[in-house]
Amino acid sequence: MITKDLGKRIRSLRNKTGLSQEKFALRIEMDRTYFASVESGRRNISILNIKKIADGLGISLSELFTGL
Amino acid sequence: MITKDLGKRIRSLRNKTGLSQEKFALRIEMDRTYFASVESGRRNISILNIKKIADGLGISLSELFTGL
Repeated sequence: MITKDLGKRIRSLRNKTGLSQEKFALRIEMDRTYFASVESGRRNISILNIKKIADGLGISLSELFTGL
Repeated sequence: MITKDLGKRIRSLRNKTGLSQEKFALRIEMDRTYFASVESGRRNISILNIKKIADGLGISLSELFTGL
């Protein structure tokens, strides 16, 4: 399931930044509980929010989806 | 704007398949008018629908987002 795979990928990349879910969500101005549910693969996230996360991670969308 | 850029990219790749909007939408079981609005960049499309389009194009999500 792509939502699960994407959530895992985001969690892995966010962990590499050294930021907690809460701090990362704050940085990208996304609701903390929404962001947590994205990492858990429970959201059919839209492109605007995916882009916001990729920007926060400092990577391209293509990089974000690498391997998925 | 990512929705515009993604729409243009999808249109370009869909044109390469030789299929019309209508035929491509039918192939991936997506509403034709919804698909047309995605290509026009007027939709904040979700990951499940992006995946459906990538699958219909026969490419990975990473490839779909290349250059965006």
